[in-house]
Amino acid sequence: MDTTIHDTIRVPGFLGSSVAAGVKSGGGRDLSLIFSDVPARAAGVFTTNRFKAAPVVLDLERISRHHSQCIIANSGNANAATGEEGYRDAVAMSKAVSDRLGIDDGLVLVASTGIIGERLPLEKIVGAVGPLVEGLSADGISAAAEGIMTTDRFPKVAWRMCSVGGKEITVCGIAKGAGMIEPNMATMLSFVLTDAHIGQDCLDGVFRESADRSFNAITVDGCMSTNDTAIILANGMAGNSSIDTRSNGLTAFRDALFDVMESLARDIVRDGEGATKLIEIVVESAKTAGDARKVAYAIARSNLVKTAFFGEDPNWGRIISAAGSTGVPFSTTSLDLHIEHVPLFINGRGVAGKDAAEVMKKDTIRVFVRLGMGDATFRVYASDLSHEYVDINALYRT
Amino acid sequence: MDTTIHDTIRVPGFLGSSVAAGVKSGGGRDLSLIFSDVPARAAGVFTTNRFKAAPVVLDLERISRHHSQCIIANSGNANAATGEEGYRDAVAMSKAVSDRLGIDDGLVLVASTGIIGERLPLEKIVGAVGPLVEGLSADGISAAAEGIMTTDRFPKVAWRMCSVGGKEITVCGIAKGAGMIEPNMATMLSFVLTDAHIGQDCLDGVFRESADRSFNAITVDGCMSTNDTAIILANGMAGNSSIDTRSNGLTAFRDALFDVMESLARDIVRDGEGATKLIEIVVESAKTAGDARKVAYAIARSNLVKTAFFGEDPNWGRIISAAGSTGVPFSTTSLDLHIEHVPLFINGRGVAGKDAAEVMKKDTIRVFVRLGMGDATFRVYASDLSHEYVDINALYRT
Repeated sequence: MDTTIHDTIRVPGFLGSSVAAGVKSGGGRDLSLIFSDVPARAAGVFTTNRFKAAPVVLDLERISRHHSQCIIANSGNANAATGEEGYRDAVAMSKAVSDRLGIDDGLVLVASTGIIGERLPLEKIVGAVGPLVEGLSADGISAAAEGIMTTDRFPKVAWRMCSVGGKEITVCGIAKGAGMIEPNMATMLSFVLTDAHIGQDCLDGVFRESADRSFNAITVDGCMSTNDTAIILANGMAGNSSIDTRSNGLTAFRDALFDVMESLARDIVRDGEGATKLIEIVVESAKTAGDARKVAYAIARSNLVKTAFFGEDPNWGRIISAAGSTGVPFSTTSLDLHIEHVPLFINGRGVAGKDAAEVMKKDTIRVFVRLGMGDATFRVYASDLSHEYVDINALYRT
Repeated sequence: MDTTIHDTIRVPGFLGSSVAAGVKSGGGRDLSLIFSDVPARAAGVFTTNRFKAAPVVLDLERISRHHSQCIIANSGNANAATGEEGYRDAVAMSKAVSDRLGIDDGLVLVASTGIIGERLPLEKIVGAVGPLVEGLSADGISAAAEGIMTTDRFPKVAWRMCSVGGKEITVCGIAKGAGMIEPNMATMLSFVLTDAHIGQDCLDGVFRESADRSFNAITVDGCMSTNDTAIILANGMAGNSSIDTRSNGLTAFRDALFDVMESLARDIVRDGEGATKLIEIVVESAKTAGDARKVAYAIARSNLVKTAFFGEDPNWGRIISAAGSTGVPFSTTSLDLHIEHVPLFINGRGVAGKDAAEVMKKDTIRVFVRLGMGDATFRVYASDLSHEYVDINALYRT
């Protein structure tokens, strides 16, 4: 994918940059900075893992203040399972950048991704903060997206405009994903930047709702990381009248935000470790949304289903068996299964024809499971399971 | 593994045989029979998948009568997702053997394993019932174990003796496993034969309890099949005074039974599709057994953990991260992790030394996670995740 297409992406009032600080052993950009000209409203969604990385612990404290002005993020080292020292390292990383920028240290958010359990190479990071701040520019958002990549094959940037009360609002998100992608967002970082003027409760609500339907509706390998972080900064520089839960602008803003986050979520799955296909699993006519979600995830997480997709095998037996393993109530004769437009299982019987093998050759494949029990729906994006996944994860660390 | 070691295994009053009926496309034995000289007490544990294969539906009806005299089982075709016709095929398969044996058809149990969604090749099976019954012999139990293999690399047979009231009792089990091995026993068949005289309630209870600690405590790929079946037949021919919940013999019988079932369970994991290692995950000092189980399974099912073991990488970060993702309460500083005798994570910090890499080279590896919250323990056996797993499952069907 050509990264240069992102070079013209700007969000009013935001600057970005990244440098190679030497955290990653292989070289390359590994330290990113996002800066807002003015303190921005901030909201975040973080890993629920009991082992929270030091920067997540720090951010959880700071985001309760509802305002932030900058995000510093490194790749190559997760600063996770590093105890008290790790927490102090995260604070020191923050302090280095707030001193340089001349802002209140409490306005800095920190994120790290990479190897677990090793101390952050703090000297390298602190030493690189000068060039990092120097490099800040309005065109630097895509550079920031590059600096947070780990095993990602391409930087992830999404961008939308919307209009609120005659003012143009920009919503732009960057993300990194690849491994450990799973409901509560495993090793995933995403920073969403907008110049919208929006109330705090409204920002919290709409960001969490969008995260639930995007980053929390994808799976690569069923693992949840210690570092998952999604942050939105809204600096209000669009000058719109404040969006709140009763305002007309909310729908437009919500749609743009969801669009950006869903686009990033799809890119994360498409770039899942070793992924050769993007599988969209849509469970329909479930009794409850919870039922639909359970069935969708059971299919999305099944290694047998994932390997079948890698092998381009329309193995409907594995799909219905995964659906049947959940305890969710449905009748085995009312369930039907299509892959794209091709029926595979109807009225309790397999009906796969020759089209089935053909449709499995696509890069993006949609699976429709109808339970015939009600009106609830859930959609999840999953990757397939390939040799490359095994290679990457058997050899990542040693 | 040398299968001839099993040829002398006998259980008083039981006969076994198997033939190549042509169900499997590649040839080889694919139809097995176990027969007891007299009707035996029977108990069973079956898949909880909503899509139950036809033979499972039939067995659930019949086992409620508490007596069976024979089990006929085929490999190569699961007779699952085959609708009403599939059920009639299972009944016809049963009828063919009960007619030939001259027994009440209700005393026959049926099992099938293999491809889902295709009609059973009934003519081939019915045609092979003659030679199958002819071939019955007291030495034929290991032959029956061979006839139920699918992608298994070796037949699974375990055998123990115990003494109850001065009478020698034999407990012998055969099993097939390989793919889809998961808590509620996914594509797994196991038949346990004993000459013990035992009360029905006692047999039900002790068999279910042993299944929970053996077949329901293993995982290969997190998938639950439509065909999982574990059956015990107790024909009473040892002539012991009946074992019941108050009798002294219960402990000896329970220990022998658990030994047999655990041995089969370990063999199933060791022979998991593409498995190169047997990983025993022991979670200790949890607050409740449910907590211990949740943490053990989160580790056992993690593809990141499984690929790390395949790569012989002592990646403790993935293990503690999996433990932390469960919602089970524990303190991140009280958790400690050892692999065999080697400490990897203590007091909230990684402490892996050079021994860690060394210990990962073993074929069977024990992982100890202590939560420091109470006295509950759970142990699960898991396999690693290899290239061969991907090969087998990407190419199994088409």
